[in-house]
Amino acid sequence: MARRKTEPEALPRREVILSEAAALFARKGVVASTVREIADASGILAGSIYHWFGSKEDLIDEILTAAMRDLATWYDEAFADARTSSDRLRGLVHAAFRTIEHHPNAAVMYVRDYAYLATLPRFAHLAADGMRVRDLWLNTLQEGIDSGEFRADLDPELAYRYLAYPLWLTAGWKSTIDRTLSELETQFTALVLEGVTPRN
Amino acid sequence: MARRKTEPEALPRREVILSEAAALFARKGVVASTVREIADASGILAGSIYHWFGSKEDLIDEILTAAMRDLATWYDEAFADARTSSDRLRGLVHAAFRTIEHHPNAAVMYVRDYAYLATLPRFAHLAADGMRVRDLWLNTLQEGIDSGEFRADLDPELAYRYLAYPLWLTAGWKSTIDRTLSELETQFTALVLEGVTPRN
Repeated sequence: MARRKTEPEALPRREVILSEAAALFARKGVVASTVREIADASGILAGSIYHWFGSKEDLIDEILTAAMRDLATWYDEAFADARTSSDRLRGLVHAAFRTIEHHPNAAVMYVRDYAYLATLPRFAHLAADGMRVRDLWLNTLQEGIDSGEFRADLDPELAYRYLAYPLWLTAGWKSTIDRTLSELETQFTALVLEGVTPRN
Repeated sequence: MARRKTEPEALPRREVILSEAAALFARKGVVASTVREIADASGILAGSIYHWFGSKEDLIDEILTAAMRDLATWYDEAFADARTSSDRLRGLVHAAFRTIEHHPNAAVMYVRDYAYLATLPRFAHLAADGMRVRDLWLNTLQEGIDSGEFRADLDPELAYRYLAYPLWLTAGWKSTIDRTLSELETQFTALVLEGVTPRN
């Protein structure tokens, strides 16, 4: 309580800055976004941002790391209940849609600026995170092939690229279509498991 | 022949410039690419480009228009032989893969810079071209639903976004994987029609 008296809005203000920064990064890209713009959007002076964050890179890192931490938690939750490879695949899709719902700007940033950020030593962990996610998909697909649950002629690496990549793109275009995220997830999951043609 | 004597390499040189420009645009994006860099890559002086092309925009336009013209031709060819909705869907996929094969840089430019170029009046035709391609996909999907060949619960607009978008992304990552375009097309077509699970 003593701390709240001397810095009455410390925590909310910090959250406001993170939220406004994420919205700006998603809209303009991380390179084109400036600390001054983030401060303007947050209703504070540019120099004041450095009271909470050391740099623009710190902001980017905290936004992306929070999303990746939740994604990892949701993967664990989805896998805990999964009994079949199809269940696990549905779980991978569901965890991604939960991340898009709760961290929409981080998801857009990841799609838009991953290639650039991954070239910076500071963001080397992004590549490691990406590889862990890729391994979850590849292992799930391979297990399903081995058990006969998925097609024997399925190429896991290509299935991963053709399924997981567009899933994340959802974050960029979902506001341009009149569907709920739940409807998107249902349609996407059916496409992944069944394709466009019906089962007999 | 008289023209060839006074301008001995006019046609080849023009093709070289187009080819080098497409490679640069695909690698750096159209905004960051300069006429000087295109001239350097083509082995000519920067000012000499204007002997063949009025501007950087003329180069961009000619590269994208050539790709779109071939795509339209290949759609027509694919549809001429198609008897079922699945055939037409395979044809849409095949025409796109032929375009990625013959116009790889144009395909990357389209994915990478479409959103930017579409804001320029000069490139308003890109949006019209995009809508025609979208209509072909939506009509093919709807016809398949109506005939019972495709799932009754399929949402054509979402299927289009989840299938056609990632197809074009192939142009950007195909060099990072040891597969032929034909292998990619086979895998992608099977995912579209059947998903990951086998038919009984």
